[in-house]
Amino acid sequence: MQSFENTPDERTKYLLQELVKHLHSYVHTVRLTEAEWNTAIGFLTRVGNITTPHRQEFVLLSDVLGVSMHTVAVNNEVHRNATEATVFGPFFVNGAPLIENGGDMSGGAPGEPAWVEGTIRGVDGEPVPGARIEVWEADAEGFYDVQHEGGRVYGRAHLFADEKSEFRFWGLLPTPYAIAHDGRVGDLLKATERSPYRPAHLHFMVTAPGYRTLVTHVFVRGDEHLDKPTKDAVFGVKDSLIYDWSRHSADEPTPDGRDLQGKPWASLHFDVVLAPGQAVDYAALME
Amino acid sequence: MQSFENTPDERTKYLLQELVKHLHSYVHTVRLTEAEWNTAIGFLTRVGNITTPHRQEFVLLSDVLGVSMHTVAVNNEVHRNATEATVFGPFFVNGAPLIENGGDMSGGAPGEPAWVEGTIRGVDGEPVPGARIEVWEADAEGFYDVQHEGGRVYGRAHLFADEKSEFRFWGLLPTPYAIAHDGRVGDLLKATERSPYRPAHLHFMVTAPGYRTLVTHVFVRGDEHLDKPTKDAVFGVKDSLIYDWSRHSADEPTPDGRDLQGKPWASLHFDVVLAPGQAVDYAALME
Repeated sequence: MQSFENTPDERTKYLLQELVKHLHSYVHTVRLTEAEWNTAIGFLTRVGNITTPHRQEFVLLSDVLGVSMHTVAVNNEVHRNATEATVFGPFFVNGAPLIENGGDMSGGAPGEPAWVEGTIRGVDGEPVPGARIEVWEADAEGFYDVQHEGGRVYGRAHLFADEKSEFRFWGLLPTPYAIAHDGRVGDLLKATERSPYRPAHLHFMVTAPGYRTLVTHVFVRGDEHLDKPTKDAVFGVKDSLIYDWSRHSADEPTPDGRDLQGKPWASLHFDVVLAPGQAVDYAALME
Repeated sequence: MQSFENTPDERTKYLLQELVKHLHSYVHTVRLTEAEWNTAIGFLTRVGNITTPHRQEFVLLSDVLGVSMHTVAVNNEVHRNATEATVFGPFFVNGAPLIENGGDMSGGAPGEPAWVEGTIRGVDGEPVPGARIEVWEADAEGFYDVQHEGGRVYGRAHLFADEKSEFRFWGLLPTPYAIAHDGRVGDLLKATERSPYRPAHLHFMVTAPGYRTLVTHVFVRGDEHLDKPTKDAVFGVKDSLIYDWSRHSADEPTPDGRDLQGKPWASLHFDVVLAPGQAVDYAALME
């Protein structure tokens, strides 16, 4: 602890001193053996080896240990009726295509079309016209576009709430998927008999001046993973974020008259409530 | 914590549940911001990138955070008059040359010749003939052989205590050195105004059946680093391990009559006391 006494930046000093305190407490509490210490070093080394600009195994490790979600929790305390936050995840991409309200963010990816609409408001019900909305999701096979070679963009877009604070777009009914588990984090989940699955979800990030940036998901009520004790490999589920997605037969007319060429479709109504606070540039943060 | 409930191995379950508890407690105590979380992920990623079979930046990180030394401490509690243990470090090599008692472990590396002699005994003073002794150290420039390209072996050997439990060999008077600080750990030390220096030391590892394997250093009394508040970048110093090394002029005859060709020399008497316990195969552990 003493060793960081000269750190010029007060916050850095505090973070390091507390880190040392917690790490030493861990070693002492579990009476870590030298063999176990060595296993830990080897584990971290292999996590490092597998991490590339396209695969962030350290983020995955933080996620499955619940550290990411815990960080979200301490930074996004419940504020009255504001929509709850959850994990950001590793699949956001800055500069996703701009779509008009009513446009399609699926990029032609396989899956059941889903109409998503709602409003963006503050905690007192005040409208937030022009709020920036980022949405992203996996396809029906459970993959995000960035998990494929070749750079094709699908399942992501940004749009803006209209003058009435409303938004609407076509996406896909979300699909559950397993997080990447062919690496060290996968070994960890296997050794501990944990499921690598995440329940189906659609990511939202909503930004507007004067409001706390909201990073969240909408889950799908009825998803079998939500009823299991394992629920979500990264602990992102909150009851308030589980929504009813309506299912419609191919015969039912779509809200905007779009012809889905004989496919059934889904729909979601999702009203976002923003807490007052600062806009956070997550995109810059994650670079 | 719940998530690791199904882990079949009880010790693994305990280690992971306590790890999660300590990590969450850290995040909560410092109220880690999302930007700080991201900095931590980036730091670990870069530590991973620099780690190779020849450079273990994670070990270095564990060392400068005092985690390595703390692990040594909980596994080597003081046992009566037994010699105290300290960090193993990353520079041990299995299969160092065998030398006879009185042989030279310096391998011709630059430095002041030093005659090292002593005994190996148990805590009741009983002799331990045949105890295996591994010794290794940096040269006068502060580098271990493995830090150079080309595979030249110097500054390391193993020998055995003789039938009277005595040992003696020629080595080098140890030199203080800076740990590798051109990587992320170096950045950390710089940002926190910490010294990268380790005081001069000679590594010992002593193994004998029925005794706890001893991993330790002998430091050099009078080393300027020992008097600084920064003392040792990896927290390995214990007062009981600081020894007087005698200095001799070139004129003084050497204990074994060796002709040092006009060079001054040093000498150390170091009596090792082993605690009862298990021999630990550190070499296998570190592979």
